[in-house]
Amino acid sequence: MKPIQVGLLGIGTVGSGVFHVLKRNQAEIQRRAGRGIEIAMVADLDVARAQSIVGDGVRVVNDARQVIANPDIDIVVELIGGYGIAKALVMEAIDAGKHVVTANKALLAVHGTEIFAAAQAKGVMVAFEAAVAGGIPIIKALREGLTANQIQWVAGIINGTTNFILSEMRDKGLDFDVVLKEAQRLGYAEADPTFDIEGVDAAHKATIMSAIAFGIPVQFDKAHVEGITKLEAADIRYAEQLGYRIKLLGITKRAQEGIELRVHPCLVPAKRLIANVEGAMNAVVVQGDAVGTTLYYGKGAGSEPTASAVIADLVDVTRLHTADPLNRVPHLAFQPASMSDLPVLPMSEVVTSYYLRLRVADEAGVLAKVTGLLAEAGISIDAVLQREAEEGSRQTDLIILTHSTREGTMNDAIAQMQGLPTVLAPIVRIRKEELA
Amino acid sequence: MKPIQVGLLGIGTVGSGVFHVLKRNQAEIQRRAGRGIEIAMVADLDVARAQSIVGDGVRVVNDARQVIANPDIDIVVELIGGYGIAKALVMEAIDAGKHVVTANKALLAVHGTEIFAAAQAKGVMVAFEAAVAGGIPIIKALREGLTANQIQWVAGIINGTTNFILSEMRDKGLDFDVVLKEAQRLGYAEADPTFDIEGVDAAHKATIMSAIAFGIPVQFDKAHVEGITKLEAADIRYAEQLGYRIKLLGITKRAQEGIELRVHPCLVPAKRLIANVEGAMNAVVVQGDAVGTTLYYGKGAGSEPTASAVIADLVDVTRLHTADPLNRVPHLAFQPASMSDLPVLPMSEVVTSYYLRLRVADEAGVLAKVTGLLAEAGISIDAVLQREAEEGSRQTDLIILTHSTREGTMNDAIAQMQGLPTVLAPIVRIRKEELA
Repeated sequence: MKPIQVGLLGIGTVGSGVFHVLKRNQAEIQRRAGRGIEIAMVADLDVARAQSIVGDGVRVVNDARQVIANPDIDIVVELIGGYGIAKALVMEAIDAGKHVVTANKALLAVHGTEIFAAAQAKGVMVAFEAAVAGGIPIIKALREGLTANQIQWVAGIINGTTNFILSEMRDKGLDFDVVLKEAQRLGYAEADPTFDIEGVDAAHKATIMSAIAFGIPVQFDKAHVEGITKLEAADIRYAEQLGYRIKLLGITKRAQEGIELRVHPCLVPAKRLIANVEGAMNAVVVQGDAVGTTLYYGKGAGSEPTASAVIADLVDVTRLHTADPLNRVPHLAFQPASMSDLPVLPMSEVVTSYYLRLRVADEAGVLAKVTGLLAEAGISIDAVLQREAEEGSRQTDLIILTHSTREGTMNDAIAQMQGLPTVLAPIVRIRKEELA
Repeated sequence: MKPIQVGLLGIGTVGSGVFHVLKRNQAEIQRRAGRGIEIAMVADLDVARAQSIVGDGVRVVNDARQVIANPDIDIVVELIGGYGIAKALVMEAIDAGKHVVTANKALLAVHGTEIFAAAQAKGVMVAFEAAVAGGIPIIKALREGLTANQIQWVAGIINGTTNFILSEMRDKGLDFDVVLKEAQRLGYAEADPTFDIEGVDAAHKATIMSAIAFGIPVQFDKAHVEGITKLEAADIRYAEQLGYRIKLLGITKRAQEGIELRVHPCLVPAKRLIANVEGAMNAVVVQGDAVGTTLYYGKGAGSEPTASAVIADLVDVTRLHTADPLNRVPHLAFQPASMSDLPVLPMSEVVTSYYLRLRVADEAGVLAKVTGLLAEAGISIDAVLQREAEEGSRQTDLIILTHSTREGTMNDAIAQMQGLPTVLAPIVRIRKEELA
C-alpha cells in the first residue's frame, strides 16, 4: 500500500524530531501501522534551514497553503503554535478534507470547540496527543483507557519548566528569581518565560484534560490560572517540615455543582509518587471511580518525546482514516451530541484545604486571635507550626494547615486576619491537595 | 442504535465488577461509546449465585456454550481463567464470529499465538487490556501510545501480592514466610499462592508485554521465572544500605542478539519512582528511543480496577467492530505478517549487574581471594560492603555490587567463589537494574 503522505507545517524543534524519528524508526512504524508514513512536504518560513533538515528528497515551501492544497497530502501536521495563523491553517486544512495532527495546546484550549465541530462536520480527525504532557500518552489513557470510569479528578505536573524551577528551589533552598535565571541559562526556561511561570501553559493543558475527562467543551477562559512567581523558599521549607512538597498542578475535578478547573502551586503529601516527580519531568494522576488512582509519568517536552506523541497520532489516523467516522474515537472522548453542560465553577466555589503563612508579632494572644477568626468562619485547623522568634526579632512565622473549605470563605477569613494589628505582612496562602 | 450485547463467561470477582461498573456508569459509557453496552447473558456454574448478582433482567445459564451460540451476543467476555476450558471456549467464540474480551494472562501467554491467528483469520478482535496490570491501560500505551518508538525495554511491578509481601518485609524487617502468612490472612495472597510468589503470574504478563513491545510471538516457555520465596530480610536491609530497594520485576529487553524475557527479584535504585511503588500497587516502566522513560502506575488487581480494563476493551470493540479489520489495531501491536523472529535469549546470555552476598570467614585475605576470582572472570566491582563480624562470631557478610556482565560468566564466577574454603554458605545472588 502507498505510504500515508504527511505535510508538515513548521519544522522547528518538534518538527525536526518528527522527521528524524519517522525516518529512524520507519521499518518499526510500518510494521505497526500496516503501511509507511512519509513526510512528503514541509512548509517553513526558513526554507533553506528546513531543506537542510529534511534533505533533497522532500519538497519544502514557504507557504503553508501549498501543503494544504496538495491533493496528495493525507494528513497535515501543524507545529507552528499560537492562536493566529495556526488557527487559520488548521481550519483550512479541515475544510480541504485533511486529517490534522497538532501539538498546539493554546489553540485547542481556546478554539477547540470551533475546530472539533468543523472536523466533525467534515468527517476528518484532529489528533492532539502531543498537546498535553509531551510523550506521555495521557490523552489516549483518558479518552480510551479509562472509558469505564466516572473520572473524579485529574491532577498533573504538566509544565516542565516550573517543575524544574520548583525542584531546584527545594534542593538548593534558593528563591524563585535566582533559579529562573539558572533555568534560562540551562535552556529549561525560555527568554520570555511568562507562559510557563505564570501557569498559562499548564492551564491550556488542564483545559484540554477537563474536556476529555468530563465531556465538557474546552473553556480556557473559565480556568483559574496562578503561577509560581510569588513562591518563596521559606514556604517550600515549611511545607517540607510538615511532610509536603509544593508543585504547580493543573487540576480539574468533578464537584457537586460543576467542574473545577485550576492551575496553582499546591502542597502535596511528600509520600505521593507525584510529589517525587523532579526536574523537567511531567506526571498526571487520574482518579476514576472504578480504577482508583492511576499515574502517568514521562518527558513533557523536548524534540523527540513530543515527536513520539505526534507520530502516535499519525499511526492512529493511518489506522482509522478509512473507517466510518462513527466508529472513530470522538475527538473529546465523548460523542459530540452527548456533551455535558456542567458549568466550570468560579474559584470562590472551589473547596480545598490550605497552607497559610502569617508573619506575626511575637506576643501573647496572637495564635488565639487568628484561630478564633478561622473558627468563626467555620474553617477547621489541621496543623499549626509556630517557630520561636529569631534571636533579637519580635516577629515570627505562624504556619497553619486547614481542613477543606470553600475558597470564598477562606478569602473572607484571610481578609479578617489581615486586619489584625499583630499580622505584620501580607498573608501567604497556598492550596493543598491530598490527592488520595 | 441497539446496545451492544455482551455475554459473560464466569461471574466471580472480576465479572461482578464488570456488571456493577457497566450498570453504575451506563450513561457515561454510552456518552463515550456512542451506544449502550449491556450484559445480556451470563454463564456460570453457580447459576443461583450468578442470578443473585445480575438480578432477574439478565439470563443466566450454566453452559457457556449457550452464550457463544446465542446469535444476539456481539462480544463474549471470558473471565473463567486457566488454560483448560477457557481456551476451548475462546476458540469456539472466535469460530462463532464473536469478538472476545479476556483478562486471562495465562491463556494468552501460553496459547496466544494460536488464539490471535484464529481471530485474525475470522476477522474478529480479541482484546486483553485486563490481562496485564489490571486497571492500568498499559497494553494500550505500548500498542498505540508509543508506536513511534523502538521500545528498548519494559520493566514492571506486575504482581501485587509479591509487591505487598516485599513492602511488608522491608517496612517491618520480617522474613518471607512470616509476611506471606499475614498477606494470606489479609486476603492479599491466595490460599495456594504458588503462581504469585514463584513469579509465574508476573511471567505470564511479561510474556504478553514482550510480544507487543517487540513484535515477537508470545513465548512463555522461554521466560526465565524466579520468585521471591528465597529472599531474606538481610538482603533487603543490605540493599537499603546501598541505596536500593528489592522488587520483583518482569523485564523484557531488546538486546543485540535477541530479546530478554525474565522475572526475578531485582535491586532498583531507591530514588527511582518505581522503587517507591508500595503495597499491592503495580507500575510499569517503558523505555522508548524517542520518548525516553515513561511510567504507568495503578491498581493491578481487584474487582473494579480489572473491570475498568475489561470495559475499556468493550468500548474499543464497540467503536471498532464494524470497521474494516485492516484498519483495526493489530492484536499484538504489529501486523501479523510483520512479526519478528528475534529469539528469546537463554538466561545465560542476559547481561545485567549483580548483588552478591557471601557468608565468609572473618580472616585476612578473604576479600582479596573473592575479588581476585571476579577479576579473573572479567567482572568489575561497583561497590563492596563488609561488616565487622558480630561479637563472638568468626563469620561475617561480604556484599558486592558488580557492573554488568553476562549471566553465564557470573554463574561460573559464583561456582568458583563457592569453592573457596572461606566461603561458608551458599552465595546469594540478586540481579540489579539501574532502569535509567
